[in-house]
Amino acid sequence: MSVTIKDIAKAANVSYATVSRALSDHPDISEETKKKIKKLAKDMGYTPNIIARSLITKATKTIGLIIPDITNPFFPEVAQGVESHAYDNGYTVLLCTTNWQIEREERYLKALKSKMVDGIIIAPAVDDSHIISNFNGGDTPVVFVTYSPDDPDCSFVATDDYKCGYMATEYLLKLGHKNIAYIGGLENSSSDRRRFEGYREALKSYGLPLRYSPMHGQFKQMSGYELTKELLIYNDIPTAILAGNDVLALGVIQAVEEFGLKVPDNVSVMGIDDISFASFDKISLTTVAQPKVKIGQLAAEIIIQKINSPQDKTPIKKILEPRLIIRRTCRSI
Amino acid sequence: MSVTIKDIAKAANVSYATVSRALSDHPDISEETKKKIKKLAKDMGYTPNIIARSLITKATKTIGLIIPDITNPFFPEVAQGVESHAYDNGYTVLLCTTNWQIEREERYLKALKSKMVDGIIIAPAVDDSHIISNFNGGDTPVVFVTYSPDDPDCSFVATDDYKCGYMATEYLLKLGHKNIAYIGGLENSSSDRRRFEGYREALKSYGLPLRYSPMHGQFKQMSGYELTKELLIYNDIPTAILAGNDVLALGVIQAVEEFGLKVPDNVSVMGIDDISFASFDKISLTTVAQPKVKIGQLAAEIIIQKINSPQDKTPIKKILEPRLIIRRTCRSI
Repeated sequence: MSVTIKDIAKAANVSYATVSRALSDHPDISEETKKKIKKLAKDMGYTPNIIARSLITKATKTIGLIIPDITNPFFPEVAQGVESHAYDNGYTVLLCTTNWQIEREERYLKALKSKMVDGIIIAPAVDDSHIISNFNGGDTPVVFVTYSPDDPDCSFVATDDYKCGYMATEYLLKLGHKNIAYIGGLENSSSDRRRFEGYREALKSYGLPLRYSPMHGQFKQMSGYELTKELLIYNDIPTAILAGNDVLALGVIQAVEEFGLKVPDNVSVMGIDDISFASFDKISLTTVAQPKVKIGQLAAEIIIQKINSPQDKTPIKKILEPRLIIRRTCRSI
Repeated sequence: MSVTIKDIAKAANVSYATVSRALSDHPDISEETKKKIKKLAKDMGYTPNIIARSLITKATKTIGLIIPDITNPFFPEVAQGVESHAYDNGYTVLLCTTNWQIEREERYLKALKSKMVDGIIIAPAVDDSHIISNFNGGDTPVVFVTYSPDDPDCSFVATDDYKCGYMATEYLLKLGHKNIAYIGGLENSSSDRRRFEGYREALKSYGLPLRYSPMHGQFKQMSGYELTKELLIYNDIPTAILAGNDVLALGVIQAVEEFGLKVPDNVSVMGIDDISFASFDKISLTTVAQPKVKIGQLAAEIIIQKINSPQDKTPIKKILEPRLIIRRTCRSI
């Protein structure tokens, strides 16, 4: 059984109230007694029951972080940013992964709420409506991350997804490509939708039509691989392929080369995110970088600010700029 | 403010006890009343305060999982195994990352304990003594993962690290290599120590001495890169390098090629873990695979068993077999 304040009181031969006040540095208790009680508590292995205490103080010094996919290195880097800033400010972070499933997301939101975290940072699986209806105006502050909800009352930190798509496509257009296909992730993901919009607008600004229907699957390497196989079999071979993110791009490269074509000699391939493996020399993926760690740090900063000023409901919105990273998977034609 | 049982009682014009019993399906309450109260609770947005309830029932249906590094894809795959098995059995998983730091590990252990998770699965940063002294014989069951403590009373799921090192080295020896260097991770990691032991014993069984002093840094790509640069500058060039894990191996390859040598033509490179990127065609890393997802699933299975049988203190120990995965970074000489 865990050690309680009662046990310490018994061992010290003082009252429950004395122990409780000594441990919480009450001014009425002498320094000597405090020291004695604290040492005893430590020796006996006492852990303050933060939950029981938080029923009164309402502060648990924990932040919940919900991400859709821990195996896509993009999200662990964001999580690292959240964790490091939170940790430096005395908060612990409890991370939950939803595997892109709304029902998992709902269960985790409930779990975190009932565990009374002080705030929640969430990268939603696909849609935000159930999160917003559950949380907006509620007790627990929420900050969206890598995602900008349409609801004007929400706080968020995200990269400009539209610009990611536009910037990537514009770079390919400037290299002389006209037949550019898009291999997307989840169809109902707003990030993917906005990246695709940027792609389409960039083509349009060069007077080019959509030559390839957008293809969608999951944000997984295998999905990029399978969609690209399908693309290459049933269509004219594009001179360039823009993938909705880097893990998709890795699948695209694999499929292109298995098809007997070379990257970038026959087909240029471009990603979005700049996961750490993209810079590995043998891959050298040209991509549009999101400031992943910074996104996480800012989200932690905002949630802590929200936790500390519960009265202030003004949303804080940060849209960060993507950055073109030229490596070796795209060439001019 | 959150909705309480009191609020529901007021709205339904019944007693607190009636609402409480209706929500917990007490047989004394009529089906009709239960239905009415449950609907009302749902409409009002009532979330049962699992924490407050767990102060009595002692069950929170959550498992804490502590891992050292979320950016090494090895651990996310283990975490995925834990999460999927736990989720299917009605548990939610709260993940914490320690960044290989003992002080972070201690803070997270305390946080999880005070959040009253039902059990903890932990891949320790370097050393287990503070965990064992804190938890063994305590209320919260603990299962070690990817790590086998020396303490005979601990439950764990791990791959045979010694065999990983032995198997990898034996493969290189069979290919004809005699000058094999070892690039390790954290020096005080027991996994690394056991892998190195396996390497040394395999050399010994071929009558070969340790030609290169073991090199240690962190379990990071950059560390593998820097140690290899140092190795190549100050030593005879080895014909093969065994890396303590796959992310180190990626750094080794990068350094070897920047040094003007080719993998595997001049230097064979071997990893341990089989992270998903190892199989990417452009990398095709020869490695020794750990059954990552299975490790996670088994750990979840054991912790749930421990949670359900608190009286049974018999430790459950699973040592899984590694598997040689031959790809294209090693050649015979």
